[in-house]
Amino acid sequence: MELGFPLAPGATIGILGGGQLGRMLALAAARLGFDVVILTPELDAPASRVARETLIASFDDADALARLADLCDVITYEFEKVPAAAVERLKALGAPVAPNDETLAVAQDRVAEKTFLNAAGVATVAFAEVHDTQSAAAAAALIGVPSLMKTRREGYDGKGQKWVEHVADAAGVFEALGGVPCILEAPADFVRELSVIAARGRDGGLAIYPLAENHHEGGILRRSVAPAPAAPDLAGQAERIAAQILTRLDYVGVIGIELFGLADGRLLANEIAPRVHNTGHWTQDGCEVCQFEQHIRAVAGWPLGPTDARVHVEMINLLGDEAGAWLKLAAEPETRLHLYGKREAKPGRKMGHVNRLSPL
Amino acid sequence: MELGFPLAPGATIGILGGGQLGRMLALAAARLGFDVVILTPELDAPASRVARETLIASFDDADALARLADLCDVITYEFEKVPAAAVERLKALGAPVAPNDETLAVAQDRVAEKTFLNAAGVATVAFAEVHDTQSAAAAAALIGVPSLMKTRREGYDGKGQKWVEHVADAAGVFEALGGVPCILEAPADFVRELSVIAARGRDGGLAIYPLAENHHEGGILRRSVAPAPAAPDLAGQAERIAAQILTRLDYVGVIGIELFGLADGRLLANEIAPRVHNTGHWTQDGCEVCQFEQHIRAVAGWPLGPTDARVHVEMINLLGDEAGAWLKLAAEPETRLHLYGKREAKPGRKMGHVNRLSPL
Repeated sequence: MELGFPLAPGATIGILGGGQLGRMLALAAARLGFDVVILTPELDAPASRVARETLIASFDDADALARLADLCDVITYEFEKVPAAAVERLKALGAPVAPNDETLAVAQDRVAEKTFLNAAGVATVAFAEVHDTQSAAAAAALIGVPSLMKTRREGYDGKGQKWVEHVADAAGVFEALGGVPCILEAPADFVRELSVIAARGRDGGLAIYPLAENHHEGGILRRSVAPAPAAPDLAGQAERIAAQILTRLDYVGVIGIELFGLADGRLLANEIAPRVHNTGHWTQDGCEVCQFEQHIRAVAGWPLGPTDARVHVEMINLLGDEAGAWLKLAAEPETRLHLYGKREAKPGRKMGHVNRLSPL
Repeated sequence: MELGFPLAPGATIGILGGGQLGRMLALAAARLGFDVVILTPELDAPASRVARETLIASFDDADALARLADLCDVITYEFEKVPAAAVERLKALGAPVAPNDETLAVAQDRVAEKTFLNAAGVATVAFAEVHDTQSAAAAAALIGVPSLMKTRREGYDGKGQKWVEHVADAAGVFEALGGVPCILEAPADFVRELSVIAARGRDGGLAIYPLAENHHEGGILRRSVAPAPAAPDLAGQAERIAAQILTRLDYVGVIGIELFGLADGRLLANEIAPRVHNTGHWTQDGCEVCQFEQHIRAVAGWPLGPTDARVHVEMINLLGDEAGAWLKLAAEPETRLHLYGKREAKPGRKMGHVNRLSPL
């Protein structure tokens, strides 16, 4: 274990980002006796209201990064779009950052991500790299159609991607996506979407939660069911995938791995999120140690906690106005309500979630 | 229900006091989407580090109270020694305070407390009021010896009390306690100490947790076991006691009621704490809705949550240096660790607690 770890209670954990994931990380950190400092450009961010201190600055503000490095014993993040330069700067200042920058580089580029996954022995859909109209056409000829073109960087919740229906259309789709570097992916012939939340500690120890089955609407996670029904024979595969990824990345923290479940029983990795993950919110009420505490344990160099499900959970995101049903939801004895303290309920915005519990 | 209740998420809850109870209340409030403002004279208080804002001032600072009333939609407290004048001031400023001032008056005076309990049909030990050497002698003659003299106000963890061994000693004991108003209590011939944590909502609804069995050392709570072993026949009694007390006080919030379990199966009420209670910490991991969320629900005018035990819990306080065992404790899979973020581990100081879980 690196010098200075495990961190004793009373140490300070820095979090890049002030949204709901940062908020729930801060709550978990507080339970274990840690202080939290948030860096976010947002005024009145959800995480700020449960942290000891907030530095309000952009992620490339050198002074703010220096102050954060000075205040914190370890720094983590709640979103994977953290500028690589910010992490480099923090490292140069001697601040330990977890997960590491190799992970960020992989998670920020869809070609690097799938290349990494395959090299780690984890199957994905077929893919090809696209950087101009010529390579777009070549990729479509190689992968076949229909296939899905996505920008290599950015893009989330279904944004920054378009279907290629005919090989001849590939160049046009590339240009419609802005002519930025892209990836072309074969469609996944999946029967369901799954995810596995896993953690790796500073001692290399692994903790892997049961699979969740996920349902998206309009590219946004709508609900997760965990442990995923009829998935016991998939658990071994998921654990192998998680272990391969975490070990290869020398990862520290919680990771969310999105998977496609194929009709033949195989799992393909879709993408990785190097952070606590929306499909892991069920662990807050479904497990003795949730993904948020697990992440804090990992980055602080603590032993990881148990991951068994104690109950069956249906996690439902509360989007936009849906959070307005709080009174009805609070009255349901089987429902645990989690609200993020966001001031404005824009359509599709994640305002909270519920975990509905039922016996295993 | 009063005007303005139930409070919508996003509302602000004020807490008088910044210790561990305030901290755990603030964490529970955040989970439900509330903001928290703390009033405490203490710099860098445990609760401040998880609150949106802290007013650092004494509890009789008129400006601070006015500011708190202005910022908050409801105000509660984490300790029962809140000056009555502060609550009056807040009420005069139009700020709803829960639990109410009648409760505080009862909880702050041992004679008023036992008088209230008896009037509510709740049995206590025999007692008599003492205000001078003459009434001390008369009380000892009436109650008998040995009996326990306590100051009516203040005093906790065994402080401010002395045994009267002979009737002739009573006046001297009264003087040794400072000549302040006292109570003389008959000893409770109990076989064990128990407590019941209960809540009453703004709609008058009740939620009562299973009994805990408590073990003190040197006047400080050492451990609680819940649900208390072999107590099912006591549950009805405890529920009746809790219901009587809460209803009579028109109470809003969580209350801790300390009980003596007698050899003949009867329960006597020892004292009431109008707040979340150390003997209720087991509910954090033993119940779906813990005492902290329950208190927030109650003061916010929300429906109360379920109180069933889902698991058996042994709660152990970590006093002083004992919290130094955090690494060993964090490695125990059945142990949930709760640390308060206190900077200095003085002997006997409550630094945290663990909940050790086992199947029901």
